[in-house]
Amino acid sequence: MPTIVVDVMPKPELLDPQGKAVTGAFARLGVTSFSEVRIGKRFELTVDGEVTDELLAEVRTLAADVLSNSVIEDVVGVEVAE
Amino acid sequence: MPTIVVDVMPKPELLDPQGKAVTGAFARLGVTSFSEVRIGKRFELTVDGEVTDELLAEVRTLAADVLSNSVIEDVVGVEVAE
Repeated sequence: MPTIVVDVMPKPELLDPQGKAVTGAFARLGVTSFSEVRIGKRFELTVDGEVTDELLAEVRTLAADVLSNSVIEDVVGVEVAE
Repeated sequence: MPTIVVDVMPKPELLDPQGKAVTGAFARLGVTSFSEVRIGKRFELTVDGEVTDELLAEVRTLAADVLSNSVIEDVVGVEVAE
């Protein structure tokens, strides 16, 4: 069955405490290749049926209204996975 | 600067309470197009420098050892984003 993937990330201008914690862990482990880590969410919606343009439009609306908090997060991707 | 994206999802055989909550919210909203919702994590690692094969190998190791809990989660993707 097809899956639609929705990616949601914290807004770039906001602090991401989870990401900062990982950045700190990397530093303590001696990993220095990364200047920043940010952590967001990945939603996998299993579609019951076929992926149509209307369904994708519905997913975009749901992503903006239900799956993300537009005050602190951005929807960075809506893609059909398989 | 290039970004490496690491996607981590709960193992398919395990219950995902967050995803179940979203599935329930969809049902209450009258959205019936999706049979399942699962929620995982998306890590964006900003690379300080160039993306090499060694760096990608390091990211794969970090993804398995630090960014995911292999008891309950799978690393489903490691990709260079831009």
